[in-house]
Formats: sequence, C-alpha cells, structure tokens
Amino acid sequence: MNTFGNIFRLTSFGESHGKAIGGVIDGFPAGIAIDMDFIQNELARRRPGQSAITTARKEADAVEFLSGIYEGVSTGCPIGFVVWNTNQHSNDYDNMKEVFRPSHSDYTYTQKYGIRDHRGGGRSSARETIARVVGGALAKLALRQLGIRITAFTSQVGPFKLDKDYTAYDLERIEDNPVRCPDQELAKEMADYIFKIKGEGNTIGGVVSCVVKGCPIGLGEPVFGKLHAALGQAMLSINAVKGFEYGRGFGDMEMKGSEQNDIFYNDNGHIRLRTNRSGGIQGGISNGEDIYFRVAFKPVATVLMEQPTVDINGNETILKARGRHDPCVLPRAVPIVEAMTAMTLLDFYLLNKTTHL
Amino acid sequence: MNTFGNIFRLTSFGESHGKAIGGVIDGFPAGIAIDMDFIQNELARRRPGQSAITTARKEADAVEFLSGIYEGVSTGCPIGFVVWNTNQHSNDYDNMKEVFRPSHSDYTYTQKYGIRDHRGGGRSSARETIARVVGGALAKLALRQLGIRITAFTSQVGPFKLDKDYTAYDLERIEDNPVRCPDQELAKEMADYIFKIKGEGNTIGGVVSCVVKGCPIGLGEPVFGKLHAALGQAMLSINAVKGFEYGRGFGDMEMKGSEQNDIFYNDNGHIRLRTNRSGGIQGGISNGEDIYFRVAFKPVATVLMEQPTVDINGNETILKARGRHDPCVLPRAVPIVEAMTAMTLLDFYLLNKTTHL
Amino acid sequence: MNTFGNIFRLTSFGESHGKAIGGVIDGFPAGIAIDMDFIQNELARRRPGQSAITTARKEADAVEFLSGIYEGVSTGCPIGFVVWNTNQHSNDYDNMKEVFRPSHSDYTYTQKYGIRDHRGGGRSSARETIARVVGGALAKLALRQLGIRITAFTSQVGPFKLDKDYTAYDLERIEDNPVRCPDQELAKEMADYIFKIKGEGNTIGGVVSCVVKGCPIGLGEPVFGKLHAALGQAMLSINAVKGFEYGRGFGDMEMKGSEQNDIFYNDNGHIRLRTNRSGGIQGGISNGEDIYFRVAFKPVATVLMEQPTVDINGNETILKARGRHDPCVLPRAVPIVEAMTAMTLLDFYLLNKTTHL
Amino acid sequence: MNTFGNIFRLTSFGESHGKAIGGVIDGFPAGIAIDMDFIQNELARRRPGQSAITTARKEADAVEFLSGIYEGVSTGCPIGFVVWNTNQHSNDYDNMKEVFRPSHSDYTYTQKYGIRDHRGGGRSSARETIARVVGGALAKLALRQLGIRITAFTSQVGPFKLDKDYTAYDLERIEDNPVRCPDQELAKEMADYIFKIKGEGNTIGGVVSCVVKGCPIGLGEPVFGKLHAALGQAMLSINAVKGFEYGRGFGDMEMKGSEQNDIFYNDNGHIRLRTNRSGGIQGGISNGEDIYFRVAFKPVATVLMEQPTVDINGNETILKARGRHDPCVLPRAVPIVEAMTAMTLLDFYLLNKTTHL
Repeated sequence: MNTFGNIFRLTSFGESHGKAIGGVIDGFPAGIAIDMDFIQNELARRRPGQSAITTARKEADAVEFLSGIYEGVSTGCPIGFVVWNTNQHSNDYDNMKEVFRPSHSDYTYTQKYGIRDHRGGGRSSARETIARVVGGALAKLALRQLGIRITAFTSQVGPFKLDKDYTAYDLERIEDNPVRCPDQELAKEMADYIFKIKGEGNTIGGVVSCVVKGCPIGLGEPVFGKLHAALGQAMLSINAVKGFEYGRGFGDMEMKGSEQNDIFYNDNGHIRLRTNRSGGIQGGISNGEDIYFRVAFKPVATVLMEQPTVDINGNETILKARGRHDPCVLPRAVPIVEAMTAMTLLDFYLLNKTTHL
Repeated sequence: MNTFGNIFRLTSFGESHGKAIGGVIDGFPAGIAIDMDFIQNELARRRPGQSAITTARKEADAVEFLSGIYEGVSTGCPIGFVVWNTNQHSNDYDNMKEVFRPSHSDYTYTQKYGIRDHRGGGRSSARETIARVVGGALAKLALRQLGIRITAFTSQVGPFKLDKDYTAYDLERIEDNPVRCPDQELAKEMADYIFKIKGEGNTIGGVVSCVVKGCPIGLGEPVFGKLHAALGQAMLSINAVKGFEYGRGFGDMEMKGSEQNDIFYNDNGHIRLRTNRSGGIQGGISNGEDIYFRVAFKPVATVLMEQPTVDINGNETILKARGRHDPCVLPRAVPIVEAMTAMTLLDFYLLNKTTHL
Repeated sequence: MNTFGNIFRLTSFGESHGKAIGGVIDGFPAGIAIDMDFIQNELARRRPGQSAITTARKEADAVEFLSGIYEGVSTGCPIGFVVWNTNQHSNDYDNMKEVFRPSHSDYTYTQKYGIRDHRGGGRSSARETIARVVGGALAKLALRQLGIRITAFTSQVGPFKLDKDYTAYDLERIEDNPVRCPDQELAKEMADYIFKIKGEGNTIGGVVSCVVKGCPIGLGEPVFGKLHAALGQAMLSINAVKGFEYGRGFGDMEMKGSEQNDIFYNDNGHIRLRTNRSGGIQGGISNGEDIYFRVAFKPVATVLMEQPTVDINGNETILKARGRHDPCVLPRAVPIVEAMTAMTLLDFYLLNKTTHL
Repeated sequence: MNTFGNIFRLTSFGESHGKAIGGVIDGFPAGIAIDMDFIQNELARRRPGQSAITTARKEADAVEFLSGIYEGVSTGCPIGFVVWNTNQHSNDYDNMKEVFRPSHSDYTYTQKYGIRDHRGGGRSSARETIARVVGGALAKLALRQLGIRITAFTSQVGPFKLDKDYTAYDLERIEDNPVRCPDQELAKEMADYIFKIKGEGNTIGGVVSCVVKGCPIGLGEPVFGKLHAALGQAMLSINAVKGFEYGRGFGDMEMKGSEQNDIFYNDNGHIRLRTNRSGGIQGGISNGEDIYFRVAFKPVATVLMEQPTVDINGNETILKARGRHDPCVLPRAVPIVEAMTAMTLLDFYLLNKTTHL
C-alpha cells in the first residue's frame, strides 16, 4: 500500500525525521533520457523555504539516483532513489512525543500500529511527497515525448478564488508568483492573505486545479479503473486533500441532462465536442479533449496557537506547537498534484498498449 | 481492471444486453451465513421499475450463486454468481448502432477497443452495477457481524438539497420514500421535481451522501491506500459520478486551521473528539468516529429529446433516443454507494488484520 | 488468489459438485476472432471419459460465454463463462463427508476454512481446471496470430519414459494415441500399463513435457517475474504437480559450466545458439529458441482400495473410495499444461508491450 | 515485477556495478524487534569471499536501513534499505561491453530493453540477491516469533550428493563447513571438488534442499496461490535455478498411489501422518508436517576459459572472461533459498489471517 500504479509503479519509503525519503520506480520505459536538471527543478518547486509564504525550513532536497539509469538513459530496470533528510529539528517535536496533535494522524497511527515515530509526523508527514515528485518528474519526461502537458495551479485560497474558467487564463504564467495562481492580481491578494494568516499563527486551505492538454484518446480502464477514478484516488492520497471533482463536478447538479451533454460535431473531418463539460473523460476513458479537475485541500492542521488535546494516556493537556510550518500548502501542493497526475497518465498510457495484440 | 479490492475482491463481467451480468467474489471470509433474502432485497433497491420516478424497465434481477457457498455458509472459496438479463429490448438501440450518443461512452469505447456492443451501453451500462450490489450485499453480511452500519441517502436533487447536517435526520427512514431522502417533506418535493423532469424527457443529477457508523479504529493503509482515497476511487468508479468529498470536503476552504481542527478530549476514560470535521478519517485511517462523505452524480446523459451528434463515419446527424431511461439516478444510486462502501470497508478490515503478527 | 496473470487475468470459481465451474477472463485483447469449435475441442481433450484409460465419468463440458464477445469477436471487456456441472454423483461421496481421504486436501481445507464442500473434492477438485482450459484456449487463439505454438505431451508414465530429446519426435502426432505420447510404440506400452493399474484399483504418476516454438525474444520480467518462474508457478498450481524443471533442469548438475553453456554464432546474419541447454530462456527472458520444460505429476490420490485414515473427530477408520476416478492423470493433464503455458505467454507478451514508450 | 509477495512485499533495485543494491519492504508487521546483528550475519552468509571456494571479491555488504524502524522496532511503515557497492572492478568488464557472454542474460536484456548496463551483469547479477537476503532476514525475525524454522543446505554438488533423507542428518551443523552440507565427510569431498573445478577455471552446479519445521497448518491459498507454487516461483526467480520439486517431487513417478499416499492416524488425540511424502503440503495448503523441497542450480555461466561468441553486431569473436567469480554458487545460495522461503511463508502467514473475519 506504499506502492502507486499498475505498470508504472512507485513504491515510496521514509519518514520526515528519518535518514531519508526515497523510493523505487518500477516499470519505467527503457530508453528515456533522464534530464536531471528538470527533476531537481521539480523538487525545488515542492521544496520548503522557497518563498516568504511557505515554511522557513531550508532543505536542499537533492535526489540521488541509485540504479536503473545508465549513461543518462533509463534501462528498464527499477530506479531506486533517495533524498537525504538534512535539516531536521527533531527536538522541536519532543513535547509531542506523548501528545496527540489535533487533526493529525498521531492518534490513528498509534492506535493502528501500536508504535509511531512522532518526529515531524513520521510517515504521515507531507515530506513523503518528495518521492512522488521524483516519480512524477520521471513520468513527465516520458509524457513530454508523447506531447502530454500537465499544468496545475492554485485556484482558491480561503475566500479568494478564480472567477473564470481555466481557459480564460495564461497557464504558462503560474510560476510568475509564489502562490502559483494564473491570475497575477488575485495571486497578490492570496499571498497577502496567506502572509496575514501566517502572522496569526493560523493556517488556511484552498483548491488546486489541474489541466491536462494533449492526452490521447483511449486512456482509462473500465469499470473499476476509470481514468477519473484513478486520478481521484491519486489526489485523495495526497496529505490534506478532502475532495476531488472533474469536469463540472459538483456543479453538474444544477444542470439538466439536455444542458450538460457535450455535443459531437464534425470539425473538418475530425470528430470533436462543442463543449467539454465532461472534463475530457467519458465512460472513464479520455476522449482527447482537455482533462481538468479540482482538488480541495484543508487548512494545515498545525497551528502555532494553544490547543487543548490529550496525551497517549488520555490525560487532557494543552499543546503549543513549535517548529516551522506552512500557513498554506497550496503553493507547494501544485507540483505534487502535477506529479500524481503524470504518474497516473503514464501508467494508463502503458496499460492502454495492452488493449490490442 | 474489472477487479475491485485487495483481499476481498470482486471481479465483474457482463453487458447490458448480453446474456448476464455476473462476477466472482474472492477473498470473502469463510464461515459467514449467507442471507439470500437480504441479498435479493439489496438488488430490489437497485432494480429499475421500483417506483414512478425510475425507468419503466421491469427486471427480476434474481441472483444465482454458482459456488463458494455450502449449506448456506461461505466456504472461503470464490463465490461465482450470475444475474440473467431477461428484459432487454435490444431493438430500442438499433438506431444507435452507428451513432455516438452525447456524453455517453460510445465514442471513447469505439476509439479504444475498435469494437463495441452498442446495445444499451454494453459494458458501460449502469446495469453492470448489479454485480457491485451483490458484492456489497455479501460484504454487508460480514460487516454486520462487526457492528459496522452503512447508510447512504439522497441529499440533493437538482436545486433541492438537505439544509442540515446528517445528524439532524433519522437515517432509519430513508426507505420511507422513493427518493431515499431522510427529510420526508423534501423527498416529496424532490419526487415531484423528478416527475416533472421526466415529463420533459429530461434528466437531473444530484448528490448521494453516505454515513458509516461503528467503524473500528485503524482501517486505512497509508500512504497510497488511505481509506478516503480508496472510498473516493470506489465512488468515482460508479457511472455518472463526477465528484467525491469526505468530512467537510470542499467546504474546508472557508475555515482556518484553528477552526477546522477536531479537538480530542477524555470522555470518561475514552479518547474522543469534540467535533468530527475530519469525517472519521485522520491520516487516511479511521478514527472511530462516523465516516461521512458525499458523491456527486451528473444528470443521466440519455434525454428523450432530439440532439445533434455524429455517426461512426463522422457524419452529423440528429439522435432521438428511445428506450426506457431514468430521469434521475439518485434513488437507485443509493444502494450502489452503500455497496461500494461496504466492499471497501470489508477489504480494509481484512487488510488491517495483517498489521500485526 | 483465484486469479492468474497480470494483464491477461483468469479468475476462476466453482466446485466439483456445485452448479458450475466458470471464470472471468480480463485483459484479453480486443478484436480477436473467437473460434468456438476450437475452444470446445480443447475442453474435449481435457474431458473425462474420452478413452478407456480415463475415468468413466461422462461430462459434456460445454462452455457458455456470457459476455465480452460480440458478433464472434472479443470486445476488450471481461469474458465471463460457465460450464455447468451435469453428471455429478454426489452420493458417491456421502461416506467421505466426515472422513479425511489420504493425500487429498480434505484435512487442510477443513483446518484452514473450518468448513468444506466434501463432494468430489469441492474446490480442490481437478474439475476446476476446466476454467483454465477455457482461458488457455482463448490465449491460444491470440498466440496463434503471433505464430507461437505450444505442444505438451506425456513423456513418462510410471517406469515408461521417452529416452530421447523432444526433437527426435513428431510432435504433430501426440493426439494419435490416448496417452498423448509422441512415441507411438511407447504410447501403447503406457496405455497397457495404465489399464493394468486401473484394474488393480491403483493409480500411477508421470511427467508431462512441453515445448513452445515461435516465442519472440524478450518475454519475461526480471527479477521476480522471470519467464520460467512464472511458468513454474503456473505448472505447480495444477493439481498433483510435484516438480518443474526447464531446459536441462535437474540434469544440469552433472555438467560443468564449460559444457553447459550455449554458444552464440552468426547464422547468416542472425544471432543464434549452437545448443539450447538453457531451454529458450536466459536471465528470465525468452531468447527466441524453443522453450521446453517438464512437469512431474504424482499418482492420483484416490485409489479404489481400503486405506486406513481418520475422521473429522480424529477417530481411526477404514476408507474405501467409490466413484469414478482416473488411474493416471497424464493424458488429461496435457491440455491443462498447454493452457497454463498459453495464458502465461500471452500475459508476458502483453506485459512486454509496456517495456518501451 | 521487481516486487515479491502479496502482503509482505519486497521491491528491490540495483545493479552489480551501480551505486547500491537496495529495496523497500512493505507490509512488514509492526512491533517486531529488529536484530541488526542477525541481519548482518545473514548477509555475511551470502557474502563473496567468505571461504576459499567462493569468489575472491571482498565486499562488506553492510546494510543501512533508512526508514520503518524506530528505536529498534518495526513501525509498520515501509522499510527502505541500501547496501552500497564498494568493491566493484568495473574495468574487468570493459571487454564485455559489446560482447554477449554465453548463457548469461546479456543478449536477452539487450534485445528486450535496447540498452543494458553490461558491468558485472547489471541488474541480472546475483548481487541483486542481497536485497532478498535482507528481506528474508527480516521475515525470519518475524517467523522466529511464530516458531517457524527454515534450514537450507547443499545436498548435491556435481556428482557428489547426499544419499539419505534429510531426517538422517543434523541440520544444526550446516554452518560447520564452507559448503553448507550437513554430512561433514561429504562436505569435504564437495569442497575439494569445487576447489579442483575452480583451478580449471570451470564451474559446477548442484542442488540446495530446504526444510521448514514448525509451519502451522493452513498456509497456502488455492487455487493459483498454492503454497508450493509460490515457493516454486520464489526459488525459480533466483539466478541459475533450473528446477524445483517438493516432497518426493520427480521421484513420485516411480510409486503407485497406494504406495505414495500419506496415511492419517490418531497420535494421542492429534491427527498426524505416518509418512510425509507430500512434503508438508496438501491441496496447496500446509498440513503441519515438515515442508521440504529441492532446488536445482546450474553451473555458473562465467568460466575463465576462452569461449566463442558474438558481439552486439553479430560478429563472431572469442571471449576470455576476467573478474572474480564463483566456481560453484551452492554454498552462497543456501542463505538465498532460506530468504526466499522466509519471505514466502511470512507473506502466506499474513494472508491466512484474512481467511476468517
């Protein structure tokens, strides 16, 4: 259950304050040139300390590949990798060893496993997503050859949200601001808001949207492997995610069938759709239109305020978190959403090759 | 990819207008008494023709078990079953053989497989969910012994929605109206609305909510097998589902961390939570509180109106659907949501048994 | 665990004296013409009562496909099928309900599951292999298009064994005798021996050999998915199999490395091997030479003689088996070995398609 | 396909001359004390250079755990580990970069992947088994708590073989000689023979036998997950293995059913078997008796003699291997056979916990 995917498979390991985060990528196609700068840049997008609105932790997060790449090219053998943990302040967590932090996994891990590494959230730390970003970066290198492009962005932070459809924005410019929002004005408001929330020692959630362009027709495996079901699982496996919708999602309920349906037409010899309310997926299979979906992130559970809680013996106590934490995960979640999307699409692309003899 | 689950596994087969829908349930625990009446009743809840607001098709949907049960008790061997298709009007679909119905899977199946059984949607028909309801009914029989109770209900139809939290309603009474809504007054409005929509030859979507009570602590397998990620995939694999959220879901974005966190306290020696905004799952693992989530269904794609479309050669044409269709899938989706939930929970219950030696 | 394969997957169900044996084949490529006569003929090769040296049971073993085939062609959707049990004499087993038959699975099933269908061996009956033969027949239809040909044959029955390498025999003639041995003279001796053993109420084991011609280079997935490891598992999953060896197998121990190695040479521009001691597989991957392996079957456990045993309460008793049983499974095992080989090769052929983008 | 197991899962990575061999163990039970000395000792048993009859390479093979263990106890989270490659003489292989070594995987890897790391066999090197020994050592720590004991030993080297059943030997004494043979006299003959073969620059194969004591009744998952089928796959996935048999294996063919059957009796209230020809497994499920099986290893393909072969362009050439190689893998294969057995048994032990609710 620490493995993601069917053909392309990422198995990840590592705790926040252990020696390293790492993983094994199996099923990666042979013969793909591995662009190390690209991979490291993807990690930089996820890295803490990248701007004033993220946690102040500084981690190099340099990936070290141990196998599966020979002379800069993937060999088809499993790709092992590690990212060493170098900037852990485990002492920050000493006062939490026997205390259950509210809305964290401390209580459930302790109950399930009977033991837990309390330092920095242990296995349930968002630091685990490093392995996903490495896997996603490799997947992107393969998808790039297929012309599949994935762009995620922050579409809502607390009360601030994009008021138009993604087609209204220049998705090439999400890296122009630290929030990763394509509306540069709104991005500034979001950043100010996050900065203010941070000052309060509080946190805030939001929505990451994601758009896939250039996806070929035919990805998705009915009935339980519908493409959007796989994407949904992928997104819901990211820390702090509470919801997923694709196409018009929960908004579909306001429309009647006659209004919601996407109409086919003949576009100079090509079958196309006049609208894309389906979000690029019909019957669980990609139809060649843009795939788009939204992912809801709750506010970070660690607030720098006093909160009542209990310890492992059930005694009520007051917790005051220390440590360096994100007031809002959205900006750093963007590359993680992209990574999970990339791995899902590459996996389904490879699976689809087995549809015919 | 027609298999659902890890330990408890349902593999389903069958097309809408083929000989039968069926499946194999593997990994079902040995020694469970099989209550046939209960299973058949679950199928009756899913069956078409059960009320004036569903399709007029009449199908007995009687399940025939072929293996794995001996003298009324599960043997631990795979349980094969079939539900024969007896009331198919395949001719209703003759005019669709070479036409792509809007917002159906006709186009994507044809592109992916190069061949498709066009009758009644073939494999992509919601009739496939019969196998899920059988699997879910068996899972419920096992979960019942564990004290785990699952209740889904219609919480929204088009513009009509429940305005209170599920705790405000009597969930024992969802079967008291054909919409399966716990608010009897609202149910009547919903039914009237569906009836009106049906008269227009149109369709409408909505939301099914689901509540799990009595779930033990510890179900869920970090990091990719988080319980809510598995539930999300399960729900998104149901036909017409466009979104999934658990706990406060997309609503979490409006709250700050200090407001959203659930606070632990000592309830006469038991560790409990003062609120349940987390929806019964923390860190991907059940925490013993009620699990609740919401599932968005789009309006049924088949409307009894003329719609422009194209045929398999790309020629534009006008489609006028015939056949007997649901104006709103919500009432019949309720038992399907419950079934997928039951199978997911039983699977994770069994998985959790392997956490310790 | 009732599922075989990775991409091509057979999930089987059914007990000897239940309603039916059946299964679901998932991942079968779309667009393959389904030759029903061929499939039924494969079942006829496995069927009891086909000659004087097999059990006297007469079973039609007619397969009924329920899905996944439309107008004679596979659709890429799961193929459900059943073979009804029609000639069961369950009363033959009444005296065994509470008795553990020696060297059968009665004791272990009872211990593991706490319940068992005692009639005819229940799930552990060799009748379960019907589902494998159906799956194998479908796989053969696909492999035929790829030019891959599988031939198994009886190479040993008790003390009677082929004394030459498979290349010395005409493998086209294995169906010319009821033992399915390519040496027609030896076949007669084997048949006489089996007939004599049958007259004693006793049973005898032997070896089935299998040769695959036309297998493309590249099938096999290191390190745990080596082609011969998958074939070994497939064979060892057949009832009564006690051993598997490929290439020279256990015979390799007598040779030194310098004698055992296969030497490459240039055969008019093609790289070939002067010998094939490796059995067509090197490093777990097919090398384009003939694949060959041997499978050891123990004597059938059911002998028509008095045997001491115990009942479910531990009381010692004398068992005298009734019923209609094979004195030697080898002739009927030949198509089963072929079926498992076919499914394994098709699965690995499909897997291999994902090696490159 | 670089993952082994169902619940307990080892995913391995690494090439002989890459940075490291390593892996991730997922599904290891929580709460097991990790005895580092024991694990390191298991690696020492596999290590090259341990005696005069193994390769002269000296590798420390020190394992470094990166996750999943906290304060000396397993946490239930994935256990990542690496063993750094420190003593590689990659130059030894320079002359093999473009040459296919006979009976190695060079040719098939190149054909399948289009690229290969030629140094030391790359991924197909037996050095990969380091990851298996680490996984096996952890599994043994868990099995020890269950009273399950696994002992493998060399039972044949070339023409020298044990002439009695395993019960005739003291299995506690296999470590008393470098061949790991329980017959100390024969061990000396074997060692002399290997030393002589080594002097010739040649190699020799043999058989490793394995005995499991204390295995509880009920491990094994019919029909495709029979315990011996899983053990067979596990053994056949080890480099150089050509055959597997359990119980009397290929020897069963000489006996009639009445002679081969194991008879049950009542041993002071316990159901026992008078003989154990079945090898501890009936119907694919362990029956509580000793499990025993035999594994055939071919001679090492690398001989220090001139051999004709071809290069990647098909040109015929003469290869003279350099490097440090084993004349006989048997002594070092013993701990690998034990490791694969341990992982298989732990996996099936955990799976068996899901048989009942």
